[in-house]
Amino acid sequence: MELAQEINNRVEAIEAVIRRYLPREEGYQKTVIEAMNYSVLAGGKRLRPMLMQETYRLFGGRSEVIEPFMAAIEMIHTYSLVHDDLPAMDNDEYRRGRKTTHIVYGEAMGILAGDGLLNYAFETALKAFELEPENGNIPKALKLLAGKAGIHGMIGGQTVDVEYAGKTLSEERLDFIYRLKTSALLEASMLIGAVLAGATRNEQRLIEQAASELGLAFQIQDDILDVTGTQETLGKPVGSDEKNQKTTYVTLKGIDRARQDVADLSRRAVERLEGLVVKNEFLIRLMLYLIQREK
Amino acid sequence: MELAQEINNRVEAIEAVIRRYLPREEGYQKTVIEAMNYSVLAGGKRLRPMLMQETYRLFGGRSEVIEPFMAAIEMIHTYSLVHDDLPAMDNDEYRRGRKTTHIVYGEAMGILAGDGLLNYAFETALKAFELEPENGNIPKALKLLAGKAGIHGMIGGQTVDVEYAGKTLSEERLDFIYRLKTSALLEASMLIGAVLAGATRNEQRLIEQAASELGLAFQIQDDILDVTGTQETLGKPVGSDEKNQKTTYVTLKGIDRARQDVADLSRRAVERLEGLVVKNEFLIRLMLYLIQREK
Repeated sequence: MELAQEINNRVEAIEAVIRRYLPREEGYQKTVIEAMNYSVLAGGKRLRPMLMQETYRLFGGRSEVIEPFMAAIEMIHTYSLVHDDLPAMDNDEYRRGRKTTHIVYGEAMGILAGDGLLNYAFETALKAFELEPENGNIPKALKLLAGKAGIHGMIGGQTVDVEYAGKTLSEERLDFIYRLKTSALLEASMLIGAVLAGATRNEQRLIEQAASELGLAFQIQDDILDVTGTQETLGKPVGSDEKNQKTTYVTLKGIDRARQDVADLSRRAVERLEGLVVKNEFLIRLMLYLIQREK
Repeated sequence: MELAQEINNRVEAIEAVIRRYLPREEGYQKTVIEAMNYSVLAGGKRLRPMLMQETYRLFGGRSEVIEPFMAAIEMIHTYSLVHDDLPAMDNDEYRRGRKTTHIVYGEAMGILAGDGLLNYAFETALKAFELEPENGNIPKALKLLAGKAGIHGMIGGQTVDVEYAGKTLSEERLDFIYRLKTSALLEASMLIGAVLAGATRNEQRLIEQAASELGLAFQIQDDILDVTGTQETLGKPVGSDEKNQKTTYVTLKGIDRARQDVADLSRRAVERLEGLVVKNEFLIRLMLYLIQREK
């Protein structure tokens, strides 16, 4: 089967899981729930739950205990976009061709829908205890979810990005932002899959490194596409980084070095997975596809 | 000892617990952590962790496993205030005589500090597993924390309050807002204390009802004080509800009925606790003090 088709099939199956865990739009607080679900169902590649599920499968995981975590990580990713789009942050009116949450529901409801999603992510992940009360790996998976999403993970990267908007960034600080803002949730996704499937500590360490490299390569590729892509293939304005005088990997190191680093990072990430006794060919192809994408 | 003095002593001990669980102000993301800690250390009665600790003691709880939950509930309470104060919400520049978080750190950082606190609340509560890995009550306590803080708890009440700002509220809807916005976190506080101390299901139900009545009485007393208090005793402008044409318990039912209901609710809440085999006199006195306060 074509990889793109295979990915689409998996996206559909993941959508079904996510929908099952979304809150019902009822009660006096119906509006905020509608706003939350509107945000989650705005589309997207469902990359994080997909990586989580495939890493879980890689290490032999077969139970539905992974599903609440798949839904939870997508809720966390979504809330971060909802808050990111707010007027005080990036002030975006559109995302993936749809109006952003605060444009449709108002700014106050946008803030509350984001809060609601972050909180509901933990409510959802905690449902794993109902599925498998005796599963001793759930506390560690919860800890990873919370840790990688918070101030020492995604929020931490986000705040430095906000604080240094319009200022020149050192390579060290840019690396910090990329590792936290982008890689941290990918690390959580793959690590939670590994932990819940019972991977060894060594395997967990290796997966975390591969996810970190994947995130970094993904983000650098984003910078490259902003320079080399066309509005037609990307579906969004190109050259926005230059226009916003934004420090990126490309402005710091040049396009050739950026391309070389993407190649090196992806090779390293894939080699880590290929060095494992167990294999998941789809996961490797997915990772390469994400890094080498042209849009 | 005077009750006020006894409360003050406990507040000091609780502050020490909270401080121990606050994140260290270091790393590139230092600013958001400073904003979070600024918000948490802005003072306040520490009512929720106090009720949690006293209910835990009531049912014989003696371990430090309660402490991460005490810190977590205060972080959740604080994040809700930080987001509440934002320009798109209540647009408040001062709280307890100090500048609000977004005034000091900017609006973007205010949003992120709130997100950071909500997320860190779960990171913190999850530390209970490190203290007592085999404690089978922790998952239930986590579920209560998340459930009562979310769209079927505090956030739910908050969104209806925002949605109906400036509109006339039915008694039913006002009751919904009070039960969710105010009572839900008090229920979480007392229930988590009961659950972690190993209270029976019946005892848990009784505690939840008492907490719900306490929250409702507390909120109605707030409405009464807005009419009968003076700026001097309250330390904030009075008559603000009337000025904002806000539907309150007093505008719906009149001041006499409101006073009667506060008396009835507090009597019922106290009777529930007095009916228990175990006793915590301080907890009962604390509840009465909170309800019957004149400021």
